[in-house]
Amino acid sequence: MKLRRRRTLETLRPLLASAASMVEICRVHYFDHNATAPLAPVAREVWLRTHDRAWQNPSSPYGAAARVKVQLDAARENLARLLGCRAARVVFTSGATEGANAVCAHLARTLPPGARVAVNPTEHPCVLEAARFFLGDRLVWLEVTRDGVVSPRAVDNLLAAGGLGAVAVMAANNETGVLQPWRELAQACRRHRAAFFCDAAQWLGKLPAAGLGAADWVIGSAHKFGGPKGVGVLVAAEDAEDFHLSRGGEQEHGRRAGTEDFPGVAAMVAEFVEAETKKVLLETERVRWREEFERAVRAALPGAEVVGAGAERLWNTVSLILPHGDNTRWVARLDKHGFQVSTGSACATGKDGPSHVLAAMRFSPERARRAIRVSAGWETMEADWQKLAEALAAVSTEVAPSDAVVKL
Amino acid sequence: MKLRRRRTLETLRPLLASAASMVEICRVHYFDHNATAPLAPVAREVWLRTHDRAWQNPSSPYGAAARVKVQLDAARENLARLLGCRAARVVFTSGATEGANAVCAHLARTLPPGARVAVNPTEHPCVLEAARFFLGDRLVWLEVTRDGVVSPRAVDNLLAAGGLGAVAVMAANNETGVLQPWRELAQACRRHRAAFFCDAAQWLGKLPAAGLGAADWVIGSAHKFGGPKGVGVLVAAEDAEDFHLSRGGEQEHGRRAGTEDFPGVAAMVAEFVEAETKKVLLETERVRWREEFERAVRAALPGAEVVGAGAERLWNTVSLILPHGDNTRWVARLDKHGFQVSTGSACATGKDGPSHVLAAMRFSPERARRAIRVSAGWETMEADWQKLAEALAAVSTEVAPSDAVVKL
Repeated sequence: MKLRRRRTLETLRPLLASAASMVEICRVHYFDHNATAPLAPVAREVWLRTHDRAWQNPSSPYGAAARVKVQLDAARENLARLLGCRAARVVFTSGATEGANAVCAHLARTLPPGARVAVNPTEHPCVLEAARFFLGDRLVWLEVTRDGVVSPRAVDNLLAAGGLGAVAVMAANNETGVLQPWRELAQACRRHRAAFFCDAAQWLGKLPAAGLGAADWVIGSAHKFGGPKGVGVLVAAEDAEDFHLSRGGEQEHGRRAGTEDFPGVAAMVAEFVEAETKKVLLETERVRWREEFERAVRAALPGAEVVGAGAERLWNTVSLILPHGDNTRWVARLDKHGFQVSTGSACATGKDGPSHVLAAMRFSPERARRAIRVSAGWETMEADWQKLAEALAAVSTEVAPSDAVVKL
Repeated sequence: MKLRRRRTLETLRPLLASAASMVEICRVHYFDHNATAPLAPVAREVWLRTHDRAWQNPSSPYGAAARVKVQLDAARENLARLLGCRAARVVFTSGATEGANAVCAHLARTLPPGARVAVNPTEHPCVLEAARFFLGDRLVWLEVTRDGVVSPRAVDNLLAAGGLGAVAVMAANNETGVLQPWRELAQACRRHRAAFFCDAAQWLGKLPAAGLGAADWVIGSAHKFGGPKGVGVLVAAEDAEDFHLSRGGEQEHGRRAGTEDFPGVAAMVAEFVEAETKKVLLETERVRWREEFERAVRAALPGAEVVGAGAERLWNTVSLILPHGDNTRWVARLDKHGFQVSTGSACATGKDGPSHVLAAMRFSPERARRAIRVSAGWETMEADWQKLAEALAAVSTEVAPSDAVVKL
């Protein structure tokens, strides 16, 4: 009897921990979703269920394994339908960084000699660094407006001038939330027979994916929208028959060897479908909350600026230039008050110097060092935004102008 | 009240499913652990707990994220200690296939021009295909005995003759369970200053990892020993400063960009520590069960052969050449009886022809087509092995010699 009671407690432990952590997440105001999002309830449930019922290796030769293969293909179909592309183009990966590296390596290997690749300078580090490594000499840097937007007309002119083999522009910026005109860019590339590569890691799960299949190459990461970490998706170009992420077994149509992480894929796709079918309907309301937050901050902190204020932006992201003090001080003080925000991209942490995104938008290094990034999730409510605005006002006096004096 | 009851049921659903699946796993006799293992209870619990309490991005600039970074480094230390290497050499990956590709690409890029790479012909497809793609012209194939073992003396002679830059030999074979003398091979390579690359995907979690750090390059996959799918480990060579799995952020000492899957890593390492500290103590008993199974099969099915019978083999794996009939028929019939076994490597499924492992061991294609692979887990009991032997005897009459006649 005693043993049984202990066993029941054992099995309940994960659930109790889960409840405790939900309280924790609510107590802390988490505003760093663009770095990573907490695992969504649907993703959690599907991951567990898949590990219980469909954990076999899809390549194994018995019935249970064949059923996993069928489910894996169904997940691929679901995702392809929402993106608007053939399922055969969808490759499951370990995340957007793996995808960015593979796309750049493939372009380097297959573009005609001399063909150049135009890259948006505000791309995520995984695209920038992979492009620099694999495409070095071939790179042409695009210009962005002061709001961080690539002009489709400028790209069209560049394409018309000839010599471009590919164009890489993200769907939504991870630091500023600024949206790029990827539909027009995809059309321009199609007209000029150049490949269009679109990093959609911050778009997927936040805005409707429909139409993204028009890009030749698309990458995304599950953990940016509530799926598990270590899972991602890549849409390959229609004509990329010789595209490989790795060599070995014949998994993923022979494009990515290695046992498929079907529990991870199932969890990602389940949360993605949930976001597409339910959450994106909430966008208008969320944009309003973000705008009210921006107004409140500007009122409370004269001199504060919203980066990319003139551009269309994600409903969840605000990059703020604060009126004084170093951004690391603001982040540390806000953390003490229970608000988790960041200085910029988590993937750029540890690198010297201010944000390359803000630099491309012509922010001086001095202003860029006053920037913080705030990024909400679907579970972030209007009251959370309001509390964050109040916290910024409160912290303002703690990060005194004296900081600036000390810095001098 | 009604709502509350529904919510309780909701939260209990994953646990009920888990219990149901345990019943399912027990009902079915799963003998395909070398393809993938069910998620171990410890791994499951740690994955959930980590997603509750340590899900933040380790690169983010607040306290909770810094604590995740500390835990990630502690996991790296734990693994390094068990492998016997410096923690700085350990890189977390998405699995062994990613690792094999990265090692072969690195060798191709860094070995002196003309230096050759000697490869064991019974390697897993991820090593073979990556080696063929990245190292094509440089490859030298090693010989194996009829039991599938590479001779350290032969490798030593080859190294002494000069011209070899690296040697790739796995720790344990995925199809036959045959163990390779990797300690001696690592020493021989060290003496001759050649790099030693050891795929330990089937060794880790089954036999003690101690000493594997003596190899320059080691790869493994969590899901082969009860960790989650999509997670793996790579040990990099001491002098491989310019080794990169991907470019982007500065994660994993700058060697593998992309947000770390800490919940996956934590689950893998927890199960690995459990296997190392508790399970490997059971090895002697398990070897006995396997040997009794082999005796029972040989007694019941005259003409049945155990592949690599003269070699040291994993306690969990038996590759059997059955006396008649096509292996796909045996696998299908055993599946009907509730026994899941395979024809060979899941990663080789879909490829034409019989096993490359058996071919290297000089089995004729005709005999190789009668081979099945049986691979147990720590949860497999003596009675399961006995039932499998009985099932093979029972199925024998269903896979009649008539099959062979039809084949002619």
